[in-house]
Amino acid sequence: MNKALVIQNTLSGNKETFKSIVEGHVGMYVCGPTVYSDVHLGNVRTFLSFDVIYRYLLFLGYKVRYVRNITDVGHLVGDIDEGEDKIGKKARLENLEPMEVVQRYTNGFHDVMRLFNILPPSIEPTATAHIIEQIEMSQSLLDNGLAYEKNGSVYFDVLKYAEKEPYGELSGRKLDDLMSNSRELDGQADKRNPLDFALWKKAEPEHLMKWPSPWGDGFPGWHIECSVMSRKYLGDTFDIHGGGMDLKFPHHECEIAQNKGSYGKKPVNYWIHTNMLTVNGRKMSKSEGNGFTPEELITGDHKLLDKGYSPMTVRFFMLMGHYSSTLDFSNTALQASEKAHQRMMIGWKELQDLPVSSSNDVDVTDLRSRCETAMNDDFNTPILISVLFDAVKNINLVKAGQQKIDEANKTALIQLFDDYLFKVMGLQEESNASTGDDLGSSLMEVLIEMRKEARTNKDFALSDAIRDKLASLQISLKDGTDGTTWAKGS
Amino acid sequence: MNKALVIQNTLSGNKETFKSIVEGHVGMYVCGPTVYSDVHLGNVRTFLSFDVIYRYLLFLGYKVRYVRNITDVGHLVGDIDEGEDKIGKKARLENLEPMEVVQRYTNGFHDVMRLFNILPPSIEPTATAHIIEQIEMSQSLLDNGLAYEKNGSVYFDVLKYAEKEPYGELSGRKLDDLMSNSRELDGQADKRNPLDFALWKKAEPEHLMKWPSPWGDGFPGWHIECSVMSRKYLGDTFDIHGGGMDLKFPHHECEIAQNKGSYGKKPVNYWIHTNMLTVNGRKMSKSEGNGFTPEELITGDHKLLDKGYSPMTVRFFMLMGHYSSTLDFSNTALQASEKAHQRMMIGWKELQDLPVSSSNDVDVTDLRSRCETAMNDDFNTPILISVLFDAVKNINLVKAGQQKIDEANKTALIQLFDDYLFKVMGLQEESNASTGDDLGSSLMEVLIEMRKEARTNKDFALSDAIRDKLASLQISLKDGTDGTTWAKGS
Repeated sequence: MNKALVIQNTLSGNKETFKSIVEGHVGMYVCGPTVYSDVHLGNVRTFLSFDVIYRYLLFLGYKVRYVRNITDVGHLVGDIDEGEDKIGKKARLENLEPMEVVQRYTNGFHDVMRLFNILPPSIEPTATAHIIEQIEMSQSLLDNGLAYEKNGSVYFDVLKYAEKEPYGELSGRKLDDLMSNSRELDGQADKRNPLDFALWKKAEPEHLMKWPSPWGDGFPGWHIECSVMSRKYLGDTFDIHGGGMDLKFPHHECEIAQNKGSYGKKPVNYWIHTNMLTVNGRKMSKSEGNGFTPEELITGDHKLLDKGYSPMTVRFFMLMGHYSSTLDFSNTALQASEKAHQRMMIGWKELQDLPVSSSNDVDVTDLRSRCETAMNDDFNTPILISVLFDAVKNINLVKAGQQKIDEANKTALIQLFDDYLFKVMGLQEESNASTGDDLGSSLMEVLIEMRKEARTNKDFALSDAIRDKLASLQISLKDGTDGTTWAKGS
Repeated sequence: MNKALVIQNTLSGNKETFKSIVEGHVGMYVCGPTVYSDVHLGNVRTFLSFDVIYRYLLFLGYKVRYVRNITDVGHLVGDIDEGEDKIGKKARLENLEPMEVVQRYTNGFHDVMRLFNILPPSIEPTATAHIIEQIEMSQSLLDNGLAYEKNGSVYFDVLKYAEKEPYGELSGRKLDDLMSNSRELDGQADKRNPLDFALWKKAEPEHLMKWPSPWGDGFPGWHIECSVMSRKYLGDTFDIHGGGMDLKFPHHECEIAQNKGSYGKKPVNYWIHTNMLTVNGRKMSKSEGNGFTPEELITGDHKLLDKGYSPMTVRFFMLMGHYSSTLDFSNTALQASEKAHQRMMIGWKELQDLPVSSSNDVDVTDLRSRCETAMNDDFNTPILISVLFDAVKNINLVKAGQQKIDEANKTALIQLFDDYLFKVMGLQEESNASTGDDLGSSLMEVLIEMRKEARTNKDFALSDAIRDKLASLQISLKDGTDGTTWAKGS
């Protein structure tokens, strides 16, 4: 059994045993959403993956300070430094104040996080709330000779930095390759080198979001906010930094350069990157028309979807893949996952009613050890789920009388599900019809069964009484070849 | 019928016909919560009152930019300028980063707002996200000779301001009275006059929340954030400013002084203040032990409460009083309100099934006109509710065959409820037991009744079967003197 948590560290490319800087405490930073449009499923996967990592660290007993930012300014169109600020652009199109756009999509983002039972982070700082700190870090890079000002903007000098530090160390890119692949783009004339990136951008007069700075009115570049906010809340060097793998370069590479260049320390010990979503094997994207929203996935209201899936089915589906693998949305996979999820939840329910014996065939100590080993191996949720399915097999064998479980092991097994299915994986019981969990549905089954028994016993007074009482609640019964169904409504 | 909206303006002390600055648009600012503790019921009442004002303005067709801030720094203990920052203090007590405290209570605040179906504002800015703007306004007051710096802090010079502008115009206080009632407090030695208030406070070395400024490291005073954020998002002069009446002085008085002193314009056309909550006739306060939380009000888990009330019952109860009157929480009033709320919701449901005739006795045009008149008269929700109860009377008369309603008026009446009960008052249908709407609870009543009948008929096979079937769903029955109650859980 592996008692130590091992993390695949993007920085080293290796699996490394996790050791936190301050014993018992973990500082974790995850790049959050840019709130200029609705959250997409790729975001959901990323934040869900880190939610499980956060939950597991808490489960291990760490006190975790989890910081996930909101980018409410400074992310430029096309990820190049020239062009219109994305949030400002949307605001003008809709004739709104930029912060109204920010508020709307921040609320929407929180709604989606809540829907999928993703815990809120300890701190959710915004870029606009840290303009002063971003100016200060830009100034320190100027002071250290690693940045230069040109026409009211400040740029990071990548070549200068690369003289002493390995620019590309995280993404594995070579400076020479980057140089030969870079092009001179229109409007980038202020830069000494195309690889340089903006720390502070001069605001044109029509720009809506801007602040005063030593270099005139402007707004921060995209990368600097994360350097500043992670350091402010977690310290010069902290334990874990995460994000989607598309952020590895340039965003995270630039973060490292900014932090090291500014105060001379490596900012992060463990970098974790989550992989992408595909749909029927192709990259999910709006332009391809295969990028359904979380809401469409739940309602099934999209041409590529055969039906809708409950939020917990989607959560279960996402955790059936490892965070570092691509995850393919197909109707087949989703439907298989829905069945698996139901099987798991039924197993959990049946566990409660399992008869106990004096003898025992179910080795819960071994099951728990395997759960722990799975999660300690870089948060391997697919293996964890397979172990829990082995437990469901045990439950079914006990139910069928082919295995026995004693009181202590039944209690331990309930605790195991409670720990790993609910606390660590963050699943929750859903009260909708698909999981058969709703009190009303259960009681309807009881009443329908009682009515059936009454009719079998020719106790028509009772069967009619049941029908009449239900009718008074606007519930109608329909007897069909497959049994009795019911509907509410007059 | 009064077609024009009239608002009781605290500034003039009169009811005034509302005219927005920009036709078809309304800018409204409401002072939001200080997020260093759980939201209390007084906050809920204030934000609920402005929620209905917001909803009614939207209903009238205005495009409303509604700004409600979050005070995440700068509110000092005891509302005096010396002393420890409330949020910083809590953080040290709990050994937390201040922004963790902010995040926790901001999340809690949002949860409570959602519970009572209070719409999110268009923009929810935070004080810490506007440090630069607060420094700028403080500087402009220094430049205008209305503020002075002393030992790293900046104070507003009330007497200087009062030479030209009427300090006290909102709260109706006289400068001479204020002067004679003010005392020299410890640690206020930096002030020229006890009435002066801080725009910027020097941070002691141990202070956790601080920012650089032209006057050294510090943090903003409490009043300046609202001046800055309302102006930034709504303009130099905007339509409506609201808050609880305890904020009238000094907070709102100081806001006016800061805005006028900084840029020479009256900031707000209409000031609206909501009144306080009392419990059994006494002011609700933590120290008196009569300050129950929103959660306690819902669960009933407080010594002063006979039972719990659903969120919509509480919402209905609060709207049965006018926002400008005190509202007394007593068991009698809450229970009366619960019955009234149920009667209203039953009326709404029965309206759907009302038989239509070719003739009509229900004057929906008049009812609608009276609803509009009520809301146009300073958002008079108690009158609005009484008109809707007149409509419920009509519904009952039609149901009893004593009045007739035709198809067109039935449709119009449904639309009236939809507009005023749901859109304007923001009530929503609840699926919990207290409104008798939940399927599970209704079916439990059916089963308990059937079991009682079975026992009366000495059909113990049936009564035992019901108990056993419920036990298999982890539902236990308890027979008491007042009848049978049930509980779920193993």
